[in-house]
Amino acid sequence: MKGYDSSLYEKMSVAVDLLVFTIEDDKLQLLMIEREEEPFAGMLALPGVFVGIDETLDEAVRRGIKEETGLEDIYFEQLYTFGDVDRDPRMRIISVAYMALVPVEKLAFRPGERVAGAWLVDVEDLLAGDEELAFDHKEIIDYARWRLANKVEYTDIAFHLVDEMFTLPELQRVYEILLGKKLYKANFRKKIAGMVEETEYMTTGDAHRPSRLYVMVEEDEE
Amino acid sequence: MKGYDSSLYEKMSVAVDLLVFTIEDDKLQLLMIEREEEPFAGMLALPGVFVGIDETLDEAVRRGIKEETGLEDIYFEQLYTFGDVDRDPRMRIISVAYMALVPVEKLAFRPGERVAGAWLVDVEDLLAGDEELAFDHKEIIDYARWRLANKVEYTDIAFHLVDEMFTLPELQRVYEILLGKKLYKANFRKKIAGMVEETEYMTTGDAHRPSRLYVMVEEDEE
Repeated sequence: MKGYDSSLYEKMSVAVDLLVFTIEDDKLQLLMIEREEEPFAGMLALPGVFVGIDETLDEAVRRGIKEETGLEDIYFEQLYTFGDVDRDPRMRIISVAYMALVPVEKLAFRPGERVAGAWLVDVEDLLAGDEELAFDHKEIIDYARWRLANKVEYTDIAFHLVDEMFTLPELQRVYEILLGKKLYKANFRKKIAGMVEETEYMTTGDAHRPSRLYVMVEEDEE
Repeated sequence: MKGYDSSLYEKMSVAVDLLVFTIEDDKLQLLMIEREEEPFAGMLALPGVFVGIDETLDEAVRRGIKEETGLEDIYFEQLYTFGDVDRDPRMRIISVAYMALVPVEKLAFRPGERVAGAWLVDVEDLLAGDEELAFDHKEIIDYARWRLANKVEYTDIAFHLVDEMFTLPELQRVYEILLGKKLYKANFRKKIAGMVEETEYMTTGDAHRPSRLYVMVEEDEE
């Protein structure tokens, strides 16, 4: 066929890469794995799975999250699709990156602990360090970090990093960690005023005096 | 191999679908094509191309935009990746949707005119009407419409729909069309104050009195 270019119709592999964020030790932490095989053996990488031919993207994400964390019901959203030709030296792989956010209380492990080959790493260390990461994963993490800081300003995404009930200082700390800056308490309280609701419960059992517990206001989606 | 499921490693087709938006007749318009072949023959669809095995996503987008509009240098950004299993009855196709925005002056044709099988359709008509569109394209357009309205609030995306030099009433009209509501002139002017810069030029040649022309302030990316 004149002008027919078969390279335009060749199929390729599609994967989902998972950015599972949590907060612990007052730091934003990301679930990472160490690659066992080439390419990039021994290097840190994002967990990910290939998308099955009979599987939606969301189903692949849920399968991957369950494999890595054992969890079945955590919040996730699509981040961006990365499709550079040489991002994997073996073959053409399109990667649809997803961010998942989970309060650390739900994870079965803590920073430094290794579970099923995965563990939590401080995101700022990952990005600031000289250590190379596998594939284009540093670029993906860099973009996700930027997007998180951005979305915290105009969405309720930060609420996925606290427990169902939380104190306002806890929520403020999550905002500060995502934004990378301190907030004035009065400004913060004004910002979230319409998004939270007092409960009848107070914190108990630690050295501080009891604090009021709040829940998120369920808003209708547009 | 025990537990090995080959359907998890089957390759698939990847396409980019293009949402080329412009404003004309005071309406948000989208470039659509009529499908010539099955499936969905005779129905309206978004233009799109398969991603070549040696082609990045951005390269595929540029190729598609050039095929449909003849233009080589218009603004585009990734919207979302759609990966439902049955979105194409023929085979599994992952679609990475991109939004492109272009001032109508740059397009070689006007609403109602057909060029290379493509023409402009009023987005509100597309979404409000009962007419079915090919594939999941109505869902994609609906999502893009929502995202545009959203992004106009906190980014400079609206500026891609006016010429390089524009009057403030022109820009306000673009904001109003994207937001779907009238804006108070004073509030609008305050909102865009830091984003525009006066030029020494005025509009000429129509029945109205001359208006000052403005340009966008080039901001450093974060």
